[in-house]
Amino acid sequence: MSKEIRPKARVAKGFRDVGPDEIRGLRSMLATIQQVYEAYGFEPVEQPFIEYTDALGKFLPDQDRPNAGVFSFQDEDEQWLSLRYDLTAPLARYVAENTQGQLPTPYRSYRNGWVFRNEKPGPGRFRQFMQFDADTVGSASPAADAEVCMMAADTMEALGIARGQYVMKFNSRKLLDGFTETFAIGDDVKLTWLRALDKLDRLGREGVALLLGAGRKDESGDFTKGAGLSDKQIEASLAFATATELDSRFVSGSKAGEEGLADLQAMEALFKAAGYGKDRVRYDSSVVRGLEYYTGPVFECELLMETKDEDGRTVRFGSVGGGGRYDDLVARFTGQKVPATGFSIGVSRLYSALKLVGKAGEAAVQAPVVVLVMDKDRQADYWRMVMTLRAAGIRAEMYMGTAGMKAQMKYADKRGSPLVVIQGTDEKARGEVQIKDLRLGAELAETASREEYASQRLAQQSVPEAELVAAVKKALA
Amino acid sequence: MSKEIRPKARVAKGFRDVGPDEIRGLRSMLATIQQVYEAYGFEPVEQPFIEYTDALGKFLPDQDRPNAGVFSFQDEDEQWLSLRYDLTAPLARYVAENTQGQLPTPYRSYRNGWVFRNEKPGPGRFRQFMQFDADTVGSASPAADAEVCMMAADTMEALGIARGQYVMKFNSRKLLDGFTETFAIGDDVKLTWLRALDKLDRLGREGVALLLGAGRKDESGDFTKGAGLSDKQIEASLAFATATELDSRFVSGSKAGEEGLADLQAMEALFKAAGYGKDRVRYDSSVVRGLEYYTGPVFECELLMETKDEDGRTVRFGSVGGGGRYDDLVARFTGQKVPATGFSIGVSRLYSALKLVGKAGEAAVQAPVVVLVMDKDRQADYWRMVMTLRAAGIRAEMYMGTAGMKAQMKYADKRGSPLVVIQGTDEKARGEVQIKDLRLGAELAETASREEYASQRLAQQSVPEAELVAAVKKALA
Repeated sequence: MSKEIRPKARVAKGFRDVGPDEIRGLRSMLATIQQVYEAYGFEPVEQPFIEYTDALGKFLPDQDRPNAGVFSFQDEDEQWLSLRYDLTAPLARYVAENTQGQLPTPYRSYRNGWVFRNEKPGPGRFRQFMQFDADTVGSASPAADAEVCMMAADTMEALGIARGQYVMKFNSRKLLDGFTETFAIGDDVKLTWLRALDKLDRLGREGVALLLGAGRKDESGDFTKGAGLSDKQIEASLAFATATELDSRFVSGSKAGEEGLADLQAMEALFKAAGYGKDRVRYDSSVVRGLEYYTGPVFECELLMETKDEDGRTVRFGSVGGGGRYDDLVARFTGQKVPATGFSIGVSRLYSALKLVGKAGEAAVQAPVVVLVMDKDRQADYWRMVMTLRAAGIRAEMYMGTAGMKAQMKYADKRGSPLVVIQGTDEKARGEVQIKDLRLGAELAETASREEYASQRLAQQSVPEAELVAAVKKALA
Repeated sequence: MSKEIRPKARVAKGFRDVGPDEIRGLRSMLATIQQVYEAYGFEPVEQPFIEYTDALGKFLPDQDRPNAGVFSFQDEDEQWLSLRYDLTAPLARYVAENTQGQLPTPYRSYRNGWVFRNEKPGPGRFRQFMQFDADTVGSASPAADAEVCMMAADTMEALGIARGQYVMKFNSRKLLDGFTETFAIGDDVKLTWLRALDKLDRLGREGVALLLGAGRKDESGDFTKGAGLSDKQIEASLAFATATELDSRFVSGSKAGEEGLADLQAMEALFKAAGYGKDRVRYDSSVVRGLEYYTGPVFECELLMETKDEDGRTVRFGSVGGGGRYDDLVARFTGQKVPATGFSIGVSRLYSALKLVGKAGEAAVQAPVVVLVMDKDRQADYWRMVMTLRAAGIRAEMYMGTAGMKAQMKYADKRGSPLVVIQGTDEKARGEVQIKDLRLGAELAETASREEYASQRLAQQSVPEAELVAAVKKALA
């Protein structure tokens, strides 16, 4: 007989299974976020996982090849479909499809769900991950941007992240454009300019000045060509990139820049009035955000507590979410401008952070009481005990396998059961049940001697069957 | 200037957006199911949406073409990936991948999530839909099958479906195989036999007898070739298909059949002992289930309340879930038999049923109180009012758009806001706010004359700003 070829049981590359602790922890975290967003008046909405590829558009950063970053496939009618890569592009499609007054204006909504990126997976970097978004579509007011920032700050605190451990940083794409316009940074060197400024943390002012100017030779002797800016441009760039306050000098004379500045000033006024200090929400010139669709203010929520990076170095935890204004995303479809702004939480990142600070809040779910099957012909009796326990609100199950006593105890142990209920022939004859406390048993096994433990059966008690519920409740308490 | 080509904003064929009422209704329904499954001792687990195609296997019914029914695409390393088409195949992969003692035996888990079918969409038939599954993997005991049936019955009642409005029907694949063995129904006519019996409701005994025998001419004169069975075979088939009790005569001498019978008898014994009458759980010879991987008992949960079909005829609501024993699904990977059984709820179908009987339980979420922006320069004041309301536990928002008073009232109306808060220059000068009750306003607009309404401002009251929270609470009550 030829041997059948068997598939290998393996989770697909870049994907993972999620177990009970994380599921319960996430549930509790998502419920808290939802509560804050609902309190702010946002309404839930969900778009499907699959959209027409052209409706999603191509807005992922650093994509060299067409369709890279996105899982795509052709439908039977030859139209291309893609798995959503974020929750913003599908929302824009939804709003553009429902412009005939079905939705209130502005339209304020939230949604959470899985998104997919067809990227090379790495440690902690998966191809399926969850986002939690909130968006205000149909308002050009900086108040809508400010609200999103304050809501994000409130969310962090509602999740138990202390003030001072997070900061909601904001900037504006228009401010960046304004600066390059005001200081005549040409389009040809803009990317070099931006990348050089992004290295301030690592290379310091001098290193970055070289990259902005003639170029820089690194320790290994490799030479990186610079942006070729003038001394005045370099000085202004460094001042701009290290500024902690908004400053009109950086954008004077640029229409986009002055608009961007006015937006951020209006946001700051609202933060101040609402009592959100710079420890919670502040301007940060380094915030850029990768997605191409942003048009105005951009935000990033950074967690400041320390953790170790892959190489074991102590670093700040970093970004757990971001967002910004995307005024052109609905207009892609309709041609009519529908200004919009929103914020997206990276759910797994945030959950890791909560675990790090001990606030992941896995709801303490009692593992089930296990009623052992001592006599296969008396399953009905054991089942009735389980029903009695459940009716009293106690999580309980009958052992469902076909193995013996030892395997049943091992099963209960593995489940983390607090106790098992045993009724063999002798107990049945006496109208009793035995209740064996596994937690107490484990403790005693460590402290008491084996003989003591066995002879005294400290963790085990017999009670009349009629008192099962009361005795289990007492043992659980 | 050439006109830019714009994508059309349209949801992909066979997919849909989901709004707040359904999301909230589903949340409440899913929470109830989860509660029952947790009480039974099942633990949550989640597999990814994407699996290797060979790991999922091909078990969908009636697929003429390879890969039909499933969304598939090739990974960069040329391995085929597929979107999951149910939650059972990924679970089998998960268990087969974690056999080194990581999981308790039996492994009892539940999960809910979206699955995808690349099928022709129709009315109420989507290509993305949600399932809610529970499975016991690693037990050959009929008690595990019985438990799943009782848990499904409990779930229906927990959701508010009255006893008598649902029935959990069961059968066994082995019983079907046993009958065909006992009565020598050849493999070549088995499918014709099964399809003929499936038409009993529609064609009655005589019509089906023709289809089982020589063949049948329908009203239009078309002739359908029959299975060519003998009179004795036909008579036994009809008796088998209409039996309401298990009967050993139908499977005597067949090993598979007698095993199947013994399983179902063991299940019935447990149902009886546990007090689950035939109004809740009963044998039904018509239950077959389409998926190919079932090996023993199969279940189907049918709702008995009436509804209209597509042609307006009164029909029973029908199936909202099903399942069965799939003892070979894990062995596909490992070669070692891991007996398993489970039940899957069609979430959208069940939700439609709950709506039909008025038990969909959309949680009554208060639409937000809207604070109007009467003076753009005073947004900070309005924002502080919103913060005050929220701090008092009242869902509230500041109008976030840039339009005037009329559009703001229209917005609040569309949101279903119970009331709006207004503070113009006059009110500000007096240190007051106006509270306008939109629900009362709508009522009065119907009963009172326009003059009366306008002059008395019945639905509108001014209160000192310091009493905002108390006044809003009173108006909401």
